[in-house]
Amino acid sequence: MYPSAAQPARLYESVCDDILKRIDRGEWNERGKLPSIRELAQELGVHRLTVFKAYQLLKQSGKAYVKDKSGYYLNTGSLPSDLTAMPAVHSHIQQNPLSDIQRVPVVYQFSQALLDPNLLPNQYLSAYVKQAFDLYPKVLGTYAPVQGDEELREAMAEYLAVQHRLVLTPGELLITSGAQQALDLLAKTLLKPRDVVLVDRPTYGAAMDIFRSYGAQLAAVDIHPHGYDLEQVARLMKERKPRFFYLNPTFHNPTGYTVSAEQRKRLVELAAEHRCLLVEDDPFHDIYFKQPPPPPLFAYDTEGYVAYIRSFSKYIAPGLRIAAVAARQPVIGNLLTAKSLADNGTPLLNQKIFLLLFFSDRMQRHLEKLRIALHVRMSIMEEALSGTGLSWTRPAGGLNLWIKLPDGIKAGPLLAKGMEHSLTFVPGTICDPLAEFDDRIRLSYSYANENQLREGVQLLAGLLRSLA
Amino acid sequence: MYPSAAQPARLYESVCDDILKRIDRGEWNERGKLPSIRELAQELGVHRLTVFKAYQLLKQSGKAYVKDKSGYYLNTGSLPSDLTAMPAVHSHIQQNPLSDIQRVPVVYQFSQALLDPNLLPNQYLSAYVKQAFDLYPKVLGTYAPVQGDEELREAMAEYLAVQHRLVLTPGELLITSGAQQALDLLAKTLLKPRDVVLVDRPTYGAAMDIFRSYGAQLAAVDIHPHGYDLEQVARLMKERKPRFFYLNPTFHNPTGYTVSAEQRKRLVELAAEHRCLLVEDDPFHDIYFKQPPPPPLFAYDTEGYVAYIRSFSKYIAPGLRIAAVAARQPVIGNLLTAKSLADNGTPLLNQKIFLLLFFSDRMQRHLEKLRIALHVRMSIMEEALSGTGLSWTRPAGGLNLWIKLPDGIKAGPLLAKGMEHSLTFVPGTICDPLAEFDDRIRLSYSYANENQLREGVQLLAGLLRSLA
Repeated sequence: MYPSAAQPARLYESVCDDILKRIDRGEWNERGKLPSIRELAQELGVHRLTVFKAYQLLKQSGKAYVKDKSGYYLNTGSLPSDLTAMPAVHSHIQQNPLSDIQRVPVVYQFSQALLDPNLLPNQYLSAYVKQAFDLYPKVLGTYAPVQGDEELREAMAEYLAVQHRLVLTPGELLITSGAQQALDLLAKTLLKPRDVVLVDRPTYGAAMDIFRSYGAQLAAVDIHPHGYDLEQVARLMKERKPRFFYLNPTFHNPTGYTVSAEQRKRLVELAAEHRCLLVEDDPFHDIYFKQPPPPPLFAYDTEGYVAYIRSFSKYIAPGLRIAAVAARQPVIGNLLTAKSLADNGTPLLNQKIFLLLFFSDRMQRHLEKLRIALHVRMSIMEEALSGTGLSWTRPAGGLNLWIKLPDGIKAGPLLAKGMEHSLTFVPGTICDPLAEFDDRIRLSYSYANENQLREGVQLLAGLLRSLA
Repeated sequence: MYPSAAQPARLYESVCDDILKRIDRGEWNERGKLPSIRELAQELGVHRLTVFKAYQLLKQSGKAYVKDKSGYYLNTGSLPSDLTAMPAVHSHIQQNPLSDIQRVPVVYQFSQALLDPNLLPNQYLSAYVKQAFDLYPKVLGTYAPVQGDEELREAMAEYLAVQHRLVLTPGELLITSGAQQALDLLAKTLLKPRDVVLVDRPTYGAAMDIFRSYGAQLAAVDIHPHGYDLEQVARLMKERKPRFFYLNPTFHNPTGYTVSAEQRKRLVELAAEHRCLLVEDDPFHDIYFKQPPPPPLFAYDTEGYVAYIRSFSKYIAPGLRIAAVAARQPVIGNLLTAKSLADNGTPLLNQKIFLLLFFSDRMQRHLEKLRIALHVRMSIMEEALSGTGLSWTRPAGGLNLWIKLPDGIKAGPLLAKGMEHSLTFVPGTICDPLAEFDDRIRLSYSYANENQLREGVQLLAGLLRSLA
């Protein structure tokens, strides 16, 4: 750690102590307003920066707060302490409500579609990191190519060919820092304000936030247990002329539904016919419980109308943040330029560790165990849910259950109640481009352990009764 | 590596072999056009995807190419091979010419303002990685908080306070994946199309590319050996009402100039007066040769008009990609939301390694040696340059010399000549918001070793003579 304990008190710290004494003496209690920085600096014969820093210390300790441009005030407890100086710098950035919910630390964590860290192969991860340094001793001293490490892209192209029958070259792959960045770069390269984007209804909330942050208008395509109404898709493509269709056809988030091979073929044809790119998000492909899912849409495409986002963060190593996008020209070329502007390349260290880890036999064996462990957790959650009056369609893979609430119960009040009892989930409204699904919630069974799953569902059932 | 050698030949590979034989027999030589995917699939009785994949193989091997929508053609050598299928997906993304130059592998690399990997503390980097795993065994299984690891932000806030007299809380810091991402997020949260941004002239080319990619109009502020003409700054702030002023006041890129403490104070006052955020890029603060530079502009600001980007990639560990942005509310809050949409947080592993590495005594001692090594390299380059007819102002730190070419020599043709002889540098035009500085070049002395510096400058001198 950076050494600081031995530092003598600085002038502004002494000034702060002085102010604290005068506060205790009640010197400024009457109006609650502290002298201006300039006044106090003059009075004490110090630079105004010194007083500024002393006031910052007071603010940090909760003793004072700033009220817009009018100055510093004592925090008497009755005044809001979160009013801070607001310079005239505005922003048109969207919010990210999903991330806000997930950020709350709770005991019964059903809002994170992430793996319980105990399900990761922690005991041998560090061996691969050591191996990365042995094989690539200068890995920390080197920038990766913007497009991604060549060795990783070669291994990935081969893996996708063998596993999913995707025909592509390493030059048609871009390595990104998670699927989130892939979505952001695609949106940035493709969207102008007021462009239309088709999205599943329901869909991944953060994806909608990203598209809206680039000014897109969203149009909803309903997803059902067996896929889409393709006439609706064709009609929307024809009438709304969308820039792209963002879809998640395999163990769909949040519903768990999977689109059939027949529909995949037809979707690719529709895309070419209406010149509408399909942005295929595929984070759960390996997380199937019985049968592997059909190949990605990308495997059916012969004309460059699919951009395929394959994420590994969720079930390999969230701390590495590695995803890959496969796309043909010109999409991949534009993504590459956007990536070079966005961060000039994903860190090489992370790519080399991922390369050694993911393509190892050990990892592929670990995936088999992981599928079983997640299947068990889903079954535990389903068992705990039975008899609660909730209903859902059993998914064949993935990390989530999409739950229909009993009549009259709304997701918002239920979440508020849940948070009081240290339980969170994703309310359906966040997943809905029309923000209407307030009778649905997404429960993830991947993050909580088996006890937390049982206890949490029991708690949820009690909350439902109390709201009924 | 993923196993694949034992795979039997797939159908599309057999089809590809068949096509190659028919090409050799001259079956399609006359027009050069291959049968359509549909025709050949029908003829061979295979699925059209199989033919598509076979054609992709042909394309990869350079035997065939795609001409817009009209089909596949044999590559006879006389036809361009880079015509690829272009779906109707356009893009409005900017190019990144700086990155294009730097991507070319050359012997005399004077275009990269990066450290020679041999100047990094490679021998003990892996020790810190091991330590990160010992201290945080689940580091690969954990997402970092979007804002950045708390321990890192605390250490960073303390470091910036002690080193540069910056008064800030860990909540006023955001950890990003390099300074490039910090710039991209600031631009994204602050800019609307046609907003004006002030930039130094000359300035960092990739920053201009980023601002333009968000539709900004750039207005140029001339930077001189001793800083700015503050009347020009005030006039531009008043007349153009810029959204922000992007500046690099310490060992400025590309010139090496440093803005005085007096001007820093005055710039902060002007910013508050004209309500114009100052975006202060500070990648070289630690790379001084004699005196440490004045504190950052952020240290003089009392009203939240500075966003301070502190990058460490260049001289600590490029493979980690760690930078920090310090800003007050509401700027920092908006950045946080943008970061959550852009990539949901910088990888935790990289932050923990950086934490252990950067704040160690060993690293701080290494920095002292690094300053000496870079000073030596600069002196070698200066010595080699003397008598070549080139002129420059000696910088007091940083990684670059900003060179004035002899009358009549232009940077573009010189770079073209240089590339023929495996030598690159940054032409002045790329650093100029008005794209006019074709009589200037930036030479980095940090990446090439001492011999390469001498030989490269000698080579450059020869090229200059040949162009004179």
